[in-house]
Amino acid sequence: MEFSGLNSLWTLLGAALVFFMQAGFAMVETGFTRAKNAGNIVMKNLMDFCIGAPLYWLVGFGIMFGTSGTLFGGFDLMVKGDYSAVLPSGVPLWVFLIFQTVFCATAATIVSGAMAERTKFLAYCLYSAAISLLIYPISGHWIWGGGWLAQLGFHDFAGSTAVHMVGGVAAFVGAKILGPRIGKYNADGSPNAIPGHSLTLGALGVFILWFCWFGFNGASTVSMEGDSILAAGKIFMTTNTAAAVSTITVTIVTWIRFKKPDVSMALNGALAGLVAITAGCDAVSIEGSAMIGILSGLAVVFGIEFIDKVLKIDDPVGAIGVHGVCGALGTILTGFFATEEALGGVSRGQYIGVQVLGVASVIAYVAIAMFLVFTLINKTIGLRASADDEIRGLDVTEHGLASSYADFMPIASGAPTEEAADPAVVEVLRRERAVPLGINKEGAVMTKVTIIFNPAHLERMKAAMNAIGVTGMTVTQVVGCGIQKGRTDFYRGILIENLDLLPKLQMDIVVTAVPVETVVETAQAILHTGRIGDGKIFIYHVEDVVKVSTGERGYAALQGLDDI
Amino acid sequence: MEFSGLNSLWTLLGAALVFFMQAGFAMVETGFTRAKNAGNIVMKNLMDFCIGAPLYWLVGFGIMFGTSGTLFGGFDLMVKGDYSAVLPSGVPLWVFLIFQTVFCATAATIVSGAMAERTKFLAYCLYSAAISLLIYPISGHWIWGGGWLAQLGFHDFAGSTAVHMVGGVAAFVGAKILGPRIGKYNADGSPNAIPGHSLTLGALGVFILWFCWFGFNGASTVSMEGDSILAAGKIFMTTNTAAAVSTITVTIVTWIRFKKPDVSMALNGALAGLVAITAGCDAVSIEGSAMIGILSGLAVVFGIEFIDKVLKIDDPVGAIGVHGVCGALGTILTGFFATEEALGGVSRGQYIGVQVLGVASVIAYVAIAMFLVFTLINKTIGLRASADDEIRGLDVTEHGLASSYADFMPIASGAPTEEAADPAVVEVLRRERAVPLGINKEGAVMTKVTIIFNPAHLERMKAAMNAIGVTGMTVTQVVGCGIQKGRTDFYRGILIENLDLLPKLQMDIVVTAVPVETVVETAQAILHTGRIGDGKIFIYHVEDVVKVSTGERGYAALQGLDDI
Amino acid sequence: MEFSGLNSLWTLLGAALVFFMQAGFAMVETGFTRAKNAGNIVMKNLMDFCIGAPLYWLVGFGIMFGTSGTLFGGFDLMVKGDYSAVLPSGVPLWVFLIFQTVFCATAATIVSGAMAERTKFLAYCLYSAAISLLIYPISGHWIWGGGWLAQLGFHDFAGSTAVHMVGGVAAFVGAKILGPRIGKYNADGSPNAIPGHSLTLGALGVFILWFCWFGFNGASTVSMEGDSILAAGKIFMTTNTAAAVSTITVTIVTWIRFKKPDVSMALNGALAGLVAITAGCDAVSIEGSAMIGILSGLAVVFGIEFIDKVLKIDDPVGAIGVHGVCGALGTILTGFFATEEALGGVSRGQYIGVQVLGVASVIAYVAIAMFLVFTLINKTIGLRASADDEIRGLDVTEHGLASSYADFMPIASGAPTEEAADPAVVEVLRRERAVPLGINKEGAVMTKVTIIFNPAHLERMKAAMNAIGVTGMTVTQVVGCGIQKGRTDFYRGILIENLDLLPKLQMDIVVTAVPVETVVETAQAILHTGRIGDGKIFIYHVEDVVKVSTGERGYAALQGLDDI
Repeated sequence: MEFSGLNSLWTLLGAALVFFMQAGFAMVETGFTRAKNAGNIVMKNLMDFCIGAPLYWLVGFGIMFGTSGTLFGGFDLMVKGDYSAVLPSGVPLWVFLIFQTVFCATAATIVSGAMAERTKFLAYCLYSAAISLLIYPISGHWIWGGGWLAQLGFHDFAGSTAVHMVGGVAAFVGAKILGPRIGKYNADGSPNAIPGHSLTLGALGVFILWFCWFGFNGASTVSMEGDSILAAGKIFMTTNTAAAVSTITVTIVTWIRFKKPDVSMALNGALAGLVAITAGCDAVSIEGSAMIGILSGLAVVFGIEFIDKVLKIDDPVGAIGVHGVCGALGTILTGFFATEEALGGVSRGQYIGVQVLGVASVIAYVAIAMFLVFTLINKTIGLRASADDEIRGLDVTEHGLASSYADFMPIASGAPTEEAADPAVVEVLRRERAVPLGINKEGAVMTKVTIIFNPAHLERMKAAMNAIGVTGMTVTQVVGCGIQKGRTDFYRGILIENLDLLPKLQMDIVVTAVPVETVVETAQAILHTGRIGDGKIFIYHVEDVVKVSTGERGYAALQGLDDI
Repeated sequence: MEFSGLNSLWTLLGAALVFFMQAGFAMVETGFTRAKNAGNIVMKNLMDFCIGAPLYWLVGFGIMFGTSGTLFGGFDLMVKGDYSAVLPSGVPLWVFLIFQTVFCATAATIVSGAMAERTKFLAYCLYSAAISLLIYPISGHWIWGGGWLAQLGFHDFAGSTAVHMVGGVAAFVGAKILGPRIGKYNADGSPNAIPGHSLTLGALGVFILWFCWFGFNGASTVSMEGDSILAAGKIFMTTNTAAAVSTITVTIVTWIRFKKPDVSMALNGALAGLVAITAGCDAVSIEGSAMIGILSGLAVVFGIEFIDKVLKIDDPVGAIGVHGVCGALGTILTGFFATEEALGGVSRGQYIGVQVLGVASVIAYVAIAMFLVFTLINKTIGLRASADDEIRGLDVTEHGLASSYADFMPIASGAPTEEAADPAVVEVLRRERAVPLGINKEGAVMTKVTIIFNPAHLERMKAAMNAIGVTGMTVTQVVGCGIQKGRTDFYRGILIENLDLLPKLQMDIVVTAVPVETVVETAQAILHTGRIGDGKIFIYHVEDVVKVSTGERGYAALQGLDDI
Repeated sequence: MEFSGLNSLWTLLGAALVFFMQAGFAMVETGFTRAKNAGNIVMKNLMDFCIGAPLYWLVGFGIMFGTSGTLFGGFDLMVKGDYSAVLPSGVPLWVFLIFQTVFCATAATIVSGAMAERTKFLAYCLYSAAISLLIYPISGHWIWGGGWLAQLGFHDFAGSTAVHMVGGVAAFVGAKILGPRIGKYNADGSPNAIPGHSLTLGALGVFILWFCWFGFNGASTVSMEGDSILAAGKIFMTTNTAAAVSTITVTIVTWIRFKKPDVSMALNGALAGLVAITAGCDAVSIEGSAMIGILSGLAVVFGIEFIDKVLKIDDPVGAIGVHGVCGALGTILTGFFATEEALGGVSRGQYIGVQVLGVASVIAYVAIAMFLVFTLINKTIGLRASADDEIRGLDVTEHGLASSYADFMPIASGAPTEEAADPAVVEVLRRERAVPLGINKEGAVMTKVTIIFNPAHLERMKAAMNAIGVTGMTVTQVVGCGIQKGRTDFYRGILIENLDLLPKLQMDIVVTAVPVETVVETAQAILHTGRIGDGKIFIYHVEDVVKVSTGERGYAALQGLDDI
């Protein structure tokens, strides 16, 4: 067989772009959810690709494209068979394989958004294996592998149904079985908004996805010869138009309904248009794609609301509405908006009938199959993280990661210094060993010492305070405002003379057994350099202290190995 | 006509890359501005593409490429005409259309940066429609559609003038009419620096733009046959060299002038070189591109400073300097650095003359047209957001978005629990109903109760405190440092044994009518688990309290439905 | 020579993608390090490309591809020579030059991660010049330019050794000479974890790199004709499989060793697989690539641990383990897993021998050369930033940038208002001029005034407090919780009725000479609007104050031009 460099280049370009959708999904999903799960979500995105890709090579591809059975392709370990009957013109097997692999991974990754913030990591990995290994390849075989839907003439050019709706239905089943996140619904059933931690990253993800969609839809011609050239150009136009019009539609609808245009819904709107046009991007006119854009924009707003408020399924990123609802809608609308030429002699009624049948069958199949998969996982290792893990966040509970933004937040802000060798601490300890600790137990005076200091000294301060017997403290990021002359920093050529708010830490310590003077001297030993900016120490009287875990008050509340 | 798969693939690849510039612009603009407007800015970026793309298809393309009139193409609704005379060799109409669409959207999006942080959303949408529908297509027709500048031999290969300078001049007019952001200029006219909220995202945006510029300039050959192959390679080299050299130039200049190399100006420098080389990327040698890089680097530093300090126009991201100044400069420099071959027999003086004429005409045209557009918008719906909206930030005022980083900041940090059903709250309420509230009105003792607790309990704490009559509180993110043995988290294989700073919330409540003991008991009911880490409660005496809105003091200041 | 549009397009696409790796590296390196160095790190990434690219054009390319000497190519200023002997079939010189330029820049940028957070900016720029000008082109000549390793049959298809290992060894030498960051190692030599400031951006960087690697490896065929078509498809599959399998391997290994799957190590794992497969991506089977994935996954976990814990070299992003260790490993493993066909008649033993020899020679060469370069820099201008600069962060010390997230953190949160013209401040000043300041020096009563207010008033408050003689204050971001009825914001269609936590600032001022009433009146003058939400003022008694820099207490501690 003579290979076509042009067709292969086009297909490989498409594969690279569709791979890059993983970055888009990761950004959308992490941006639309909370910071405490940010690392867990990108890890799940990474995992479903890394689990799915090898499994698809191992058996998935064979199931999908093997000998044209009606319901199931074949079992072909590591793609050793002859696929010349299904390969696009001039495209080698490896090129076609990598192209199909990244499509499979897209279906898998859709689900992570809907199940975000409450799914066990191991359970997610198992689900991911199941969809890539079996679920997706089977319906994929029906549609693209020569199976029964293909034989009926079902038209799903780049995968509104085969990829997006499969992912969306799996997401629906998973989110339903999982149940909503803690705090999502009130006792009366009304939903609460749980805003994400970075709409900016979410928007970046949407732009990445839109960019990659030109590969997803455009390169699905798997050819740049003959009619495919014209088709590719048209597909770029229909894809772009549907997305733009859908975004506008969502913006207008939310503006009317909620008085203000909703940013995160508009972002969903762009994806809704892209998903919906995917089935018929080659078959409809530009005008038709604009109509599909309007309808998918309406569908995603009301679909997400219906899922959230009526079905009470908690889908943090709107994946079910975007991929499930608009995937089904777009596939069916292809029947309504396909050009006469695209109908290819079939009556429009019959064409629509096949589209509806295909959508319905795939919904039924995926819903049942995923119900079995998720139930099996649920009954064995459990699907849902514990309530405690969910509240603390999956980053720390599943991955031992204090925060994905550890250094950005004032949590564990960095490197401890070598405290054992710290001369100031050693000196403090030497002096304090003579001081009898804990003399005034009853009727003790309690005092709060508030120390404002340069953040660089945090670890030495912690070490020194522990050394003199302080067992708890709180630390807050503050800015200290003072008058510091002579600063000459520039930002973009402008002298910054007003930059007199400097980042500082505030350490609050309440003591009774440890003498206040010991705390003050220790802080001075650590912080003193004799220069402006060394900080200040404030001393306040405290009326009382309660330790919540034991109910102890006063002196007793401040003793013992405990936090805070 | 026989289509060329190769030329079409190249052009479509370019279209996808130029589309992706939207992501780059969104990141640069949001990163260089403040967090309170982050969602609004990405929304404007999304909108100008989504408004512009359909309008360009509806009429813009016809105006730009329709029957070669000297000043105006034609009116051709939804691109139904015959464009075979202007289509590149072997490239179908749809391919050429999508390629031109994304170029149009680039011009539109440049403006949003210069007008950021103070423009009404609706006004911005209207501007965006005007530029895509009419302003850009008309000058585009002059330059690329066979209009009078094209006939004179004006050379603007990929759009230093047609795209970037059009955007930059529109940005200038818009920013001038809008006026500066509140706080940008002091009473004596000196400017203040207003640093952005994420230089990291800004830098990502610049890298994305540079990447996409290979499509913007390279694919503007719209061919990979014959001489275009050589041209494409040369364009990649000139584009890359100008950008690199311009960045270095800016780095050195800022290093000398401001003592330290300025990161954000260096990022602008990269864009300056890219903009400037765009007109002549096919016509100059690599050495010439390096010279253009040096000159555009100088121009952008002094240009931005001139605009900021002398013209006193507030351009938050430097769009006028980058796209306006360097667009004009690069177009004119093309005349100076074009190779003899590129001059094509025309004398250099005449060539330069035409370049200058083209730049001057387009500046005059766009300035007048945009002045009319912005003035019309300003006089009808108003261009500028209210001072109050501007201070609060456009995210919340235009989009009802508390923050684009809602969960990241301690603002509305998440989901309320189902307070009505919370047994601890119910129990507290039951007990407290017997307590007579508000007994000690005159001469009341005021007490501050500070509660340190696990962030997961915030919503239950709020609900419970409201339930017992507390009407105001402040909550601060702190880290609690205590001694917790037995933690075994790993980060990259390193045991984290120093991670004894745990994220906590500090709730400060000042009470007088509500008994302190009620507050303490309620907090204990909510927080007590008997485990280490339950938190502590501190009690302080308060001398006095003032409610600012009413001037009430003491007891009265703590009553009533009010915040804080 | 007849040029091939197809081959040239493929190579240019590869060049654009490899350029975009700069964005990936920038995100990985900034995400894995601390916020205080974020701007410095992206600036270094930008610089090494902008310095390296012109230098590679000036002389590097000539050294690498000039007349086939055994050890050194040639000196050819600005690439004027005849390279027709080395150019790929149908690819023009400029196309090949830009492709090679971006590869060179990749090698250079690897080093910045390992030397992050403590290297002087100028020193880094000099290093960057050296590697692009000389170090990389020389070993590159050996491998790809027809030098002695090429003549021996050394196989490094896309640069596991030529690019990644060169970068990794340079990183090793640089990090070793620099020494660890302050706080990285304890006195007993045990390492501390220093988590980065955004794993999310780090993950984005990895996804970008993986995407671009399809260009790095795939387009290294520099042809899409004949056998290259098949090769390109296979390379996409081997590249993807090695990366996926390596990621899974790292996930499992860290899960077993550290009880939980480590997110940041898994991200390193993806890069490890990509680096390792680069040498043999064309020569091994898919099965072979999976094996290379497993082995590189193991190598990166244990390699990073060995470097960190045994060699005690501080590599903040794991660059030495990823690029150095896996670059060497992948090159050698190519010998073990190359297919019979790829061996091309050479015995496997001999093939492996050449691979080992090549790796060893390049390690020796780069280690010695970089040792000389870094030592030279170290002895002249110095390689390492001062301890003070390192602790404060390189953003502010090297670039005068208060923070890359200036507006996001509460540092210098924005634009000062025009204080001189502020009527409220003027009025306060007028009234207060009658008040005798500093009357009660001895036995002074000290009082803390805590003001909770809308963040928009910060600058006016600062100006007014300074005006009445307050010399220090701290400001904290808090959220104020109060009951505010009638809010009707929507987020994704959900009414946000629980959004009663509003962002506020808390200003703490301790006064003695300045009367408390003056502070209260001034705050009221600035803050009072008569509306709900104006804020509250709390007054507390202070026992004592210590100024750390002087040791002064009480009244004296609160006087003078000083911060806080």
